[in-house]
This record gives sequence, structure tokens and C-alpha cells, in this order.
Amino acid sequence: MNESVKPMLASDNASGVHPAVFARMMAANAGHVIGYGADAYTASAERLFRLHFGEQAKVFFVTTGTAANALALQAIAQSVDAVFCADCAHLRVDECGAPERIAGCKVVGVATNDGKLELPALEEAVAFHAGLVHRSRPRVVSLSQATERGTVYQPEEVRRIAGFAHAQGMLVHMDGARLANAAASLDLPLGTITRDLGVDIVSFGGTKNGLMMAEAIVVIDPALGGTLPSIRKQGMQLASKQRFIAAQYLGYFEDDLWLHNARHANRMAARLASALLAIEGVRVTAPVQANMVFATLPPSWIAPLQQHTAFHVWNPRTSEVRFVTSFDTSERDIDAFTGEMARLATRETV
Amino acid sequence: MNESVKPMLASDNASGVHPAVFARMMAANAGHVIGYGADAYTASAERLFRLHFGEQAKVFFVTTGTAANALALQAIAQSVDAVFCADCAHLRVDECGAPERIAGCKVVGVATNDGKLELPALEEAVAFHAGLVHRSRPRVVSLSQATERGTVYQPEEVRRIAGFAHAQGMLVHMDGARLANAAASLDLPLGTITRDLGVDIVSFGGTKNGLMMAEAIVVIDPALGGTLPSIRKQGMQLASKQRFIAAQYLGYFEDDLWLHNARHANRMAARLASALLAIEGVRVTAPVQANMVFATLPPSWIAPLQQHTAFHVWNPRTSEVRFVTSFDTSERDIDAFTGEMARLATRETV
Amino acid sequence: MNESVKPMLASDNASGVHPAVFARMMAANAGHVIGYGADAYTASAERLFRLHFGEQAKVFFVTTGTAANALALQAIAQSVDAVFCADCAHLRVDECGAPERIAGCKVVGVATNDGKLELPALEEAVAFHAGLVHRSRPRVVSLSQATERGTVYQPEEVRRIAGFAHAQGMLVHMDGARLANAAASLDLPLGTITRDLGVDIVSFGGTKNGLMMAEAIVVIDPALGGTLPSIRKQGMQLASKQRFIAAQYLGYFEDDLWLHNARHANRMAARLASALLAIEGVRVTAPVQANMVFATLPPSWIAPLQQHTAFHVWNPRTSEVRFVTSFDTSERDIDAFTGEMARLATRETV
Amino acid sequence: MNESVKPMLASDNASGVHPAVFARMMAANAGHVIGYGADAYTASAERLFRLHFGEQAKVFFVTTGTAANALALQAIAQSVDAVFCADCAHLRVDECGAPERIAGCKVVGVATNDGKLELPALEEAVAFHAGLVHRSRPRVVSLSQATERGTVYQPEEVRRIAGFAHAQGMLVHMDGARLANAAASLDLPLGTITRDLGVDIVSFGGTKNGLMMAEAIVVIDPALGGTLPSIRKQGMQLASKQRFIAAQYLGYFEDDLWLHNARHANRMAARLASALLAIEGVRVTAPVQANMVFATLPPSWIAPLQQHTAFHVWNPRTSEVRFVTSFDTSERDIDAFTGEMARLATRETV
Repeated sequence: MNESVKPMLASDNASGVHPAVFARMMAANAGHVIGYGADAYTASAERLFRLHFGEQAKVFFVTTGTAANALALQAIAQSVDAVFCADCAHLRVDECGAPERIAGCKVVGVATNDGKLELPALEEAVAFHAGLVHRSRPRVVSLSQATERGTVYQPEEVRRIAGFAHAQGMLVHMDGARLANAAASLDLPLGTITRDLGVDIVSFGGTKNGLMMAEAIVVIDPALGGTLPSIRKQGMQLASKQRFIAAQYLGYFEDDLWLHNARHANRMAARLASALLAIEGVRVTAPVQANMVFATLPPSWIAPLQQHTAFHVWNPRTSEVRFVTSFDTSERDIDAFTGEMARLATRETV
Repeated sequence: MNESVKPMLASDNASGVHPAVFARMMAANAGHVIGYGADAYTASAERLFRLHFGEQAKVFFVTTGTAANALALQAIAQSVDAVFCADCAHLRVDECGAPERIAGCKVVGVATNDGKLELPALEEAVAFHAGLVHRSRPRVVSLSQATERGTVYQPEEVRRIAGFAHAQGMLVHMDGARLANAAASLDLPLGTITRDLGVDIVSFGGTKNGLMMAEAIVVIDPALGGTLPSIRKQGMQLASKQRFIAAQYLGYFEDDLWLHNARHANRMAARLASALLAIEGVRVTAPVQANMVFATLPPSWIAPLQQHTAFHVWNPRTSEVRFVTSFDTSERDIDAFTGEMARLATRETV
Repeated sequence: MNESVKPMLASDNASGVHPAVFARMMAANAGHVIGYGADAYTASAERLFRLHFGEQAKVFFVTTGTAANALALQAIAQSVDAVFCADCAHLRVDECGAPERIAGCKVVGVATNDGKLELPALEEAVAFHAGLVHRSRPRVVSLSQATERGTVYQPEEVRRIAGFAHAQGMLVHMDGARLANAAASLDLPLGTITRDLGVDIVSFGGTKNGLMMAEAIVVIDPALGGTLPSIRKQGMQLASKQRFIAAQYLGYFEDDLWLHNARHANRMAARLASALLAIEGVRVTAPVQANMVFATLPPSWIAPLQQHTAFHVWNPRTSEVRFVTSFDTSERDIDAFTGEMARLATRETV
Repeated sequence: MNESVKPMLASDNASGVHPAVFARMMAANAGHVIGYGADAYTASAERLFRLHFGEQAKVFFVTTGTAANALALQAIAQSVDAVFCADCAHLRVDECGAPERIAGCKVVGVATNDGKLELPALEEAVAFHAGLVHRSRPRVVSLSQATERGTVYQPEEVRRIAGFAHAQGMLVHMDGARLANAAASLDLPLGTITRDLGVDIVSFGGTKNGLMMAEAIVVIDPALGGTLPSIRKQGMQLASKQRFIAAQYLGYFEDDLWLHNARHANRMAARLASALLAIEGVRVTAPVQANMVFATLPPSWIAPLQQHTAFHVWNPRTSEVRFVTSFDTSERDIDAFTGEMARLATRETV
């Protein structure tokens, strides 16, 4: 199975599982435990989450980020409600309509600046919907942290948006598929960049940062989430052998593995971006604040580069591409890749 | 985490993962692969499925049995359609309304004989719905093989029901959460007890037979399932690191591990049932044909027995209990448990 | 269009609109009013409803009984909830799965005595679902008053069921498609047989009792129904020219037209039933308490009788038929029909 | 009820019912007919539709435009599909999420020129979604004719878009809430501006043009719509006394009442627009091609003008307002209103 040899910048989910996490899964593979989360691994992992998100936080493990988003929204919004998010938000464009289908609600995209929602545009979108029975009721603002464009909200930005949302009687969901990368980027604790800023519910990602199929819905506001046990079951996400999700988080939080992994991925993105700056013909198109780099390349480079290292073309019309680094991206991989790019640049100018 | 020490008869999902399966998962944890199923592990596992279910079978991996059932039904039924199943069917009573919610359709329970649908009752239920715009349209018959009552349909029984269904323009879904146990019980190949009898789509279970979170929807009729890639994504079940589901099936099908596991579990159930027959005050209440034993006990025995080995009370009013055996249930576990029961019986009669 | 000449016992919706109601519609056809219910006709009609159901009642007009049921349930139940009703309830068997599809919840049928839910069977069904994350959460008991079998709950029966429901944290929905007939049968005010007995929300029928397409959801419990304005809009039931629904209710409540209509229909059913008792070979199969008569006939009579007057075969296997009377069923119609039946009986015995 | 005296430009649904239509309803109020559409009025009305839309057209009456749109989409799209429409389309912004909720699919807004979809923007939006399992599948293009901005697609524009859609394997839905106004504007038959241009399914509006609660889904492509009988029933839109919807269409199509009504409304809009051009401070903001006029006014005029004649503020930020004319808007009403506006203009400049 030699397709697995080549390093990839296609996505952080092209990586496997961190060995320390795998070891925890193996350790959990001992004997019989009652299924569906009534096990000690789950209880321990939930305790670890509460250390980060507060004693009142409720945690619901699921297997995909789409599930975390759609079920979190279902837990806090009704079908007549609207969710406002960045127009490039994963839950709006890359989940095949799961939020609309599962939560039933309307997903309203708002134009952004490098992937980050800004208050004036958000206010206008909310005002358009508010107070009319013909329109979905403004109910949720969803922020992706880090964003789909690899940028990171500053705490004050989140606080302002959350303040606006709460003043409107709305709730704040954070799509934290890459929350670890944001925390590493901001050098702030997980609770500080969520709970303390007014975030009510979080889709907490682990899979993109070294776990296997292990995401979590973290309900911060203790008034919310009462139906989530049933919603998760109906949402086809109550794993009978849930201990194997929980065990991953035992490894993830131990010795701050989550943070080390994220820091490393962010560093590799910075290294990549830095090298790109020196290559003629390449333009980095968004601030590099987490583990993603967006850049435009000469169109003729794309095919030969993809032979070397897999990555996604973000926008075929502008020849913009996306590189994503991961916990196991090596400096050597980055350097080999940017070296290849430099060779293409040189050949071109010759 | 010592709650994992005690053997359990609560469910076959109280077991962990078979070591050979775990080894395959570890082997798959090498390097980068493209996510969402575009990897060689998935391709290999799909090939193995086609060996069993036919060259035209399509395979969609998911993480829970509820997902396999609900998404399979969504793939073949519209919201105005009705699905007919045993009134005790898992998808009707134990999935928190997921089929209604996800597939959108009506789930019509039909009274059974020991968990098995019988043609006359099915015909009557279908006739009640057919031809009236006010009623959901008969579209699917869903059979659980093995059933929720631990019984197994004979091939001829499935064939007759499938024949009726097809004659009515309906399709046949098989909930095979314990299909391996049924195949072991019947001593017949997987394709022989599904495709060859007219089954159109299968929820193929692995988790209850030694896998981790690894179920599959197997579409047998090549005319069906075209929307399943999208349905699975929208259904929050497209795992980015799908290689770790696929890898499990590489282990599962190698050297017929699936069959050995199921045979063992069935044998343990037979051993348990056989011992129960000798215990005064215990009555086995359903034919033991797979890996489940249903029995009524004196009510006073239940609490002390559950101290010894976890199991479920099936019907509190009749003091009926359910014991489920697994690939790693040992003869010693069974004997210790029935020994404990015998002690209670003796004490009672003294 | 001479098919409209023959009198019908097929359904009370085979009748047209009462002339006094039509007159009100015409009177409302004057000039411009703001649409979607912000008109004086709607305000007046709502006031009349509050006279019957209490000052805190909220009223939402819709055009079909299926809409009243499905949207009322959506307003009080979530998709993870279960609604318990008679197994013959209209919302369970004759609305093509609308409650499941629209409210999203599970509809659990409970066996009845002549269409009326009884507490022991209800308690058992609720107990089966309660407290398990795998099962839909007991949330609503739905009572049809009058029932699908033409019977009428006594006040004490409703009170007991409502008491049980509330003690379980559940709510009580009443499908009142024929509530007027029940009120006439019991000779009690509308509020007395709903609000005063603990009913929380009512599907109030008008169409079967002389209105055109005019049903209403009446929310009695002031804590409920806050989302109904949006639910009705999203549920495709917010009529822009709602004044023409409201105007019908101005006529309906004036001079107790609703009650006169219902009393008349009930009397015609009693007259029919009384005549049937005297006809050899006919057996009345359910108590005649409202405007429906169920009876078994010799199979050979059905075709010739349907030539004379349309009616439904309720159960082809037992040759049971249903006759429904209406506000405009005449004594002459009934007598002609039973006379025809008597002729068939005589011929048979000759 | 004197609020009905004042003429309104708020919406064409502020009008009542055309007398000729009302007369047809009264004529239908005779005797008993079988409910749910199995009546001669429905059969006759369907025949009239087929005269306009072709012999193979199927017609399904519903009571609201939201129902026509949502159920039409449900009939041709699955939940994993995407519907592309103008970003100002009624079904996207003014139906409280009904299409997402009922059809289950994703609604993708595309920026427009005065409310009309243009091919390049549509192509880009479709290309963004096509071929990725993570994105909803392009399935339907929905065109509003006339548009929400009062403009009208030229036949060639519809034909080009339909050609593109069909080439992509997509279908074309037309939201014809104001199709009569478009036909009058283009001076072309209904079939010519729908079927002949490649439209597959139409939401046919009557309520805004003099009917009561009478819309229709017209399925033009004979391969489509097989599930609509069930979808309409489940969608809570199968009226038992459907004869009273059908009867309205008997009046609507007789002597081309539909066309006369629409022509009149269009003429009143033209008259209004023409007068506005002469008033200092007023700017007409969209081409006036049907029965709607958009204009910006000095903000201080809005309140006094609304005292005179009701109308909607379309965009509070730009002080843009919308005037809608109807079959019963009189020249006197228009002149009185524009006179009032002229007075305000004069006062201002004094």
C-alpha cells in the first residue's frame, strides 16, 4: 500500500494517529465494559474536558466533525431558526447540507475578511432576518476557530461577536475542528478562547490533530444540551464501544499532547509560508496564523508539484492552492517540497 | 479501570476489539493517505466485501449500526414511504427514531413469532397501507438476521418474504448487525443468505463481532445506492480517516475471522442455554439459534446475578432476561455464571 | 357536475360549506387588508376562540387537519420525542407520515377499546420508552375526540389520562377534527372538555362540520406555542388571505352554529344506527356516540348500496363499513338509505 | 372592519377575491362530492391547466405559494441536492426555511442583476458544488418569473439557463407566484414561457392575482412528479374540500380572467412608475416590467405616505420601498397616492 508513503499537504486528516494515542486505545482494549459511554474511560475523558472548559461543561463524543457541528446546532436551534456563519464555513459549504438536514435550520453565509466574520456584515445579516415571521429566526452565530482560511480570531474579536449575539438573544457556536491550532497560535488555554469569551457550545476537533475518529461536542452553557444524549443517539453517533474514542482523549490531554501537536503543525505552516515568500511567482494569499497556507502559483506548476506532494487546488480560476500541515509533517517534508517549487521557479526564469 | 475486569453478558458490544483486528489498525497507521475513503485500505476492504456479496456490490463504511440502518433506508425509501419490520426490530424500538428522522419514512411494526416476521401478518400490514394516498407507501421490508430475539430466519423464509416484497414493488433490507452469527448458525456463506435470497441492501455489522466502530452498508442490487456517497456524507458518517475502519475488515475477513468469532459466540450461547435447561426455576423463552439467550428467572435472582455478571432485564414484568455472548466469552465465564445460578436455585429449594 | 347530486355517507368532508359561513366569507371580500393574519377578521375570530378556550389561548389558523396535527406536535415535541396515540389515530395511519416527517418525532400506537386509549395500555407503552437513551422520549399523549371509531371520551377518562401524562412530564394533545361532535354528544362546552381536563393543545376542526378549509391549532397552555408563528410559516400554512379562514369562524361561532351543525350530524348518525338495528344481517360494531356508525354488512350488499350512497369499507376482511353523517345530511337521505338496505335484507331472506 | 377600506400597495395579496371567482366557489357549494380531489371540479380545472401547459402536465392544487415551492422541490430533489436561485428569491429569504426543511435540500443563492439570474454567476455557483461528495449535488435551478424585483425574464434568457441546467443533468423549477404578470408583460401564452423554454415544474400562483388560497404545482415533464400525490398529502396540503380550490380556477381561466387581471395590475404599476418619474426626490430603482415598482424616497416621506396607503420598506438603509399593484388597484388609487407624494415633494422644496 505504497500510496501511503508520500508526504501530503492535502489535509491534516491525511495523517494517521499519534502513537501515544494509539497506545491508549490498545490499553483500553481489555475485557468487557458496558457500552454506549457508561464506562470509566469515558468518565475519565469527560473529567479532562471539564478541566479545560469548566466544571459545568458537558461532553458528547462523536466520530466526525460534521456530526459535531450538525448535532451541536440541532441541540441549540430549532428548524425555524437561522445560523449565521462565514460564507466559507465548513458547515455551510463542505458538509453536504448536513446542518440544514439534521438541525433543520437555515444556514446563512456572511461575507468575511480572510475567513473571519466581522461585526458589521453580521449585524446586517441578522437585521435582515429579525422580527419577520417570513424569515428564519436569528438564533446562532457560528465561528470557525481557526477559520477555513487558516486565520485565527483574536479573543477580542470573538468577545465582541459573542456580545452582539447574546444581546440579540442568540447563542454562539464555535466550530473548533482546528481549535488546538488556534489555541497554539494565540498561546492561550482552551477555556480562555471559548468559555471566557462567551462561546456557548463547541465542536471540539481531535481527528485533524492526531486522533482517529474522535470529535466532541462540548456544551459550555449549563442551561443547554439537555437533549443531546437523545440527539446524538438519533443522530447515529452513539458509539457502542465509545471507550475507544474516550481513550484517545486520555492520550490527547496527557502532557499537553494536543498542544504540542498543534504547535508543531503551526510551525510547519510558518516554515512553509516563509519559504514561499522567497519563491518568485508565488503569492501567499491569506495570513498564516494556524496550520494552513493559501497561495497562488503559476498554473503550470500545479500538476508537477502534486506529483511530489498531494495538496488541494482551492480555486481553479485563480490558481490558488491550499497546503495543510499536521502533527507529523516534518521539516524535511516541507523543505523538500519548497525545494521542488524553487526548482520549478528557477526553470521558469531560465 | 477495574470495571472492565468482570465478564459481561449484557451485550456483544461489551467486548473490545479482536487482537488480529487491532493489529491491522496499527499496520494502517503508517504515513499519509488521502482521506474520506480514497485510500488503498478502503479499496482492499471493498474487494473483500465483493467476494462475499458479488462483484456489483457497493460498500459504504459507517461507524454505528444505527447509521447503517437509517442511511440504508434513506438510500432506498422516500419520506412518503413505509418500512415494515418486526415490532421488536432494533431500528423500530432502539434507535431513538433515527429511521423516521433520517430516512424520513414511516416505520411500521408487525407482530412476530420469536422475532421473525411471518408472511400473513406482513401481507396484512402491507395491504392496509397500499393504494391510499393517505397512507405511507409500502416500500421496504426490513428483516433482522439474526433477530432481536436471537432467532435465525431459514433461507426459505427469507426467500418467501423477499418474493412477496418484490412482487409488491418493494425492496428488502436486512439488518445484519449479527449477520455473522446467522451465517454461522445456518452454516452458509454470507452471499447465500442475502443476495441469493433476494435481499437488496444489507446493514452489515462488525462491531458486535470483534470490530471497533466498523459497520457497513452493502448495496447488493446494482440499481440502488447511487446517492449513498452523498447520503453518508450528509448523514455525518463519512470518516476522514476511513482507512481505520477499512483496515479492520482486512483482519475480519482474513482466515474467516468473522466466522470463527461468530461460531464461538454461538457456541457459548448454546452452552449457556444448555446449562439453563438444567436449572430449576429458569425457562428459556426463545429458540437459541445465534448468540443470545432469553430466559425467565425468579425475580429475586436478578440482583445477585447481576453482581456476578452484567446482563439486561428484557421485560421487568415477566422477569425475562437476555444474555448475549461474544467472540471473547469463555467457557469458564459461562460455567461460572451458570454455576452461580445453580447455587441460587439450590439455595431456594433448600 | 352531477356527481354532486347523490347524498354521501363517505365522510363529513363530502359536504360543502354552510350558507351562513359562506355569507361571512363574502362579507370579508371587501377591499384591501394586510395579509398573513394582520387583519381585523383574524383578530375577531381569535377573540371568539378565547371565549371558548380561555383568555390565554393562542389560535393559529391552518387549512387542513393534517397540518393542525403535525404542526401542533412540532410545537410541543422535538424529534427525539415520542407521541403516544390510539393505534387507529388519524395522525398515525391516515396522514401519510406527516407527524413523523414534520414534527420529526416517533408516533407510537397503543391498542384501544373502540378507539379510546385506556390508561393501562398507555402506561405500559410509556414505561417501555422511558429512561433509555435508545428510545424516543415520552413527550405527548394525543387523544382523538371524537375518536376514529365514532366514540367519545367521557370527561373523567380524559382527566385521568391527562393526569398521568402530566405526572410523567408529558403534554396532552387533542385531535379535535370532530371536537364539535364530541361536545354535542357530551352536551358540554368546548373549554370544559379540553382546557378544564388538562388538554394542553388542540387541533380544532371546522372543515368536517361545515367550513371550507378552516382548521385551527389552539394552544391552551400559555407556556407553549411560542414558535408556532414560525412553525406555521415554515409549515407552508400561513395563508396570505387568512381573512377568509377567520371569517368562516365568525360565522361558525355565531349563534352556536358549530353546535347546531354537530348536533344535527350526531342525530342523523343515531337515526341511522337505530334503523340498522332493525335490519337483519347488519351488526353495529362500535358505540354510536358522535356522527359515525360502524357496522358489518353481508358482503354482497356493499356494491349495490354504494351505488345508492357513497360510503367507505373500513375492513374488507370483515365486511365492516363506516357511515359518516354531516351538518347537511337529511332525515330523508338516511331513511332512503336504510330503506334500500332493508330492501336488500328482505330480498335476501326471500 | 374599516381597516379594509384603505387601498394598499403593500402586496397583491392585500386584495380580496375576484367576484367571478367567488361566484364559481358558490356554484361549487352544492351537494356532496367525494373529498381530496376526486371530484368533477378538480377534473375540469386540471383539464384547463393541460390546455395551457400541455396534455401531459400534472396539476396539484395547494393553498400557499410556500407549499407550491417547497413541495415542488421535494418532488424533484433529494436532501443531498442543491437548488440554485436568485439570492433574493422568495423561496430563499421569505419562506422561513421551508424548502430546506420540507425538501431537505440546500438552497444556494446567486447574486443577480435586478432579480434575474445570469448564466455566468450561475455557472460558477454550480461548478463550486459539482463533483464533490462534501458538497450538495447541483440538481435544480429555480427561476422566479416575474422576479422579486418586478423584472421579467425574456424567453431567450430562460431558454439559455434551462439549456445549461439540462446539460448539467439539472432540472428547472419556475416560481410563478406572479407568472400571470410575466405572461401579460411578455404578451405570450403560459406554455410558451414555461414548457416551451425547458421549464420542468412550475409553482403556479393564483392567490396574488385574484384567487383566495389557490396555488398549483404544475409538473410539465411527464417523467417527474410520481410521488407528488403522497408528498402533497404528507406535506399537509391535500385539502379535503379541494373542489373549492379547483372551482376558483374554473373562473380564473374562463374568458382569460387571469390575463385581464394581470394586465390590469401591470398597467397600474406602469402608471405609478410613470408618475414617480416626475416627482423630485424619487428614484425608481428597478425596471418596472410586471406589477411591482421599487423606488427610493426621501426617508421623511415614508411615515406620512404609509398613513395614506400601506406599502413595504424594502431596504431601510437606503430608504427603498416597494409598491405592488393588483387586479383591483384603481387608477384613482394610484393617482391619489402619487398626488400625495407630489404634495410632499412640493412642500419639501418650498
